Amino acid sequence: MTDRIFGDIPGHPPGSIFADRAELHETGVHRPLQAGISGSATEGADSIVLSGGYEDDEDHGDLIIYTGSGGRDQQTGTQTHDQPFAGRNRALAFSCMNGLPVRVIRGSTHDFVHSPPYGYSYDGLYLVEKYWHEPGRSGFRVWRFRLVEIPSISNRQREEPGAVSEEQGAYNVPAGRHREQTTARIVRNTLLAVSLKRLYKYSCQMCSVRLECPAGPYAEAAHIRPLGSPHYGPDVIGNMICLCPNHHVLFDNGAISVEKNLSLIGATGDLWVHRKHGIGREFLRYHREHYLTDP
Amino acid sequence: MTDRIFGDIPGHPPGSIFADRAELHETGVHRPLQAGISGSATEGADSIVLSGGYEDDEDHGDLIIYTGSGGRDQQTGTQTHDQPFAGRNRALAFSCMNGLPVRVIRGSTHDFVHSPPYGYSYDGLYLVEKYWHEPGRSGFRVWRFRLVEIPSISNRQREEPGAVSEEQGAYNVPAGRHREQTTARIVRNTLLAVSLKRLYKYSCQMCSVRLECPAGPYAEAAHIRPLGSPHYGPDVIGNMICLCPNHHVLFDNGAISVEKNLSLIGATGDLWVHRKHGIGREFLRYHREHYLTDP
Repeated sequence: MTDRIFGDIPGHPPGSIFADRAELHETGVHRPLQAGISGSATEGADSIVLSGGYEDDEDHGDLIIYTGSGGRDQQTGTQTHDQPFAGRNRALAFSCMNGLPVRVIRGSTHDFVHSPPYGYSYDGLYLVEKYWHEPGRSGFRVWRFRLVEIPSISNRQREEPGAVSEEQGAYNVPAGRHREQTTARIVRNTLLAVSLKRLYKYSCQMCSVRLECPAGPYAEAAHIRPLGSPHYGPDVIGNMICLCPNHHVLFDNGAISVEKNLSLIGATGDLWVHRKHGIGREFLRYHREHYLTDP
Repeated sequence: MTDRIFGDIPGHPPGSIFADRAELHETGVHRPLQAGISGSATEGADSIVLSGGYEDDEDHGDLIIYTGSGGRDQQTGTQTHDQPFAGRNRALAFSCMNGLPVRVIRGSTHDFVHSPPYGYSYDGLYLVEKYWHEPGRSGFRVWRFRLVEIPSISNRQREEPGAVSEEQGAYNVPAGRHREQTTARIVRNTLLAVSLKRLYKYSCQMCSVRLECPAGPYAEAAHIRPLGSPHYGPDVIGNMICLCPNHHVLFDNGAISVEKNLSLIGATGDLWVHRKHGIGREFLRYHREHYLTDP
């Protein structure tokens, strides 16, 4: 595990301009000096640079179709073989499966309406919505990633002070430092979820299923007492469980709940709890009292 | 099955004002003359009225915490017993599980900043994000529904003519009739998904699992060739399959695909296809060619 930082780098908010790759490296906004993707297959990708290297990239501003790395001739830059599903390409796939935010940096050489006039511009956090492969213009396989900018705060969140969005784990704060605190919250929430899933090796605490995907295993971190109005469950590991998507749906719809002694209600067996995972029994009670049809 | 209409009622866009419940009834914007919820447990809820009847309601504009029906004394209107999880309350839970949009109407008697000065105002489409129960102010159980207004169109969609959002099935169109066409598309897409899930009785076409929830069975309609840029898969039944959430994740992440002869790749068995479900083989090929790591 490196000290890879996800989310904004303190002191360098979106809109910050950097003279060159060395400055991006030193500030930690984008650490590799040459690679377009910063990341690893087991940790995810923390940042990408759009610098015009791949003719297949598409940039619509808050929607980017980004081309993965590899398969190019070092000298000419042209695609000479298929891009592998490995390393940095898998890093972006990991970010997709785990909802990790990616810093997007545009270089002036990117040559697009959204590019800065000189140097590099840090343009904010994006989520990898999908990934797939296709033949590039060269005919060789390229990996493609659909990145969508994390949307700005809705009116609803603004009108509801103190609210946390269940989807984003985003506390509302007064305007001004709003965006900064919101994205910090989203990042923190996502990293908490990843740490919980790692603890369980991505196995469901109810059925032990682990969904094996080419980019790695998949699981979901479910909040026991929901975030957001009117529940205001806390965004802590003790209020989360690691579930497969099926059990997540059953849990959220009151088909399954958990007794104080961790036996399942609505299914046989127990919730398996790792010794390092201190689940708040008050959150389990909250779920029983509010989600079971006949508590 | 009734002729229940989901989505906007033609000729009555959001902002339309109605003199009384009779006019809401005649136009079909909200059909029941007394009940606050229009819907059934097997079809979902098509509309609700906020008229101040329940002191437990909360209205934040684009976020509403709505109280279910039942359990009140007919004469005094006070809560005298628990609200059942049945009928109209289950209708709203069905809408939640299936992503069906609900028309929200506010009455002047609702007595809130968002209420119209007189009569009733149709205020647009909302999604039921969650539902649960809790003790109402009376101490008796009430069902609660968190409704969130379907968000307006993002800049991204505006900048990308012809785009369909995967999440919303929303074609982009030029400004003006924009909202109307977008929401019509969302509604159509959701109803298509429900019809597919009904055809399969909410069983997964890959593993036959059917998730049983108190409000009914749960399944997901997965697009084979994704909607939206840059895939532009069509929003038709032939481009959808009915899956449990686990197989939906495996399918979207390329862990599983489907051969031309319908045998599964990455899992044993076949995709079970109902004789009334004409799956487009070209969409299956698209999935194999773009999502399998080693096609």
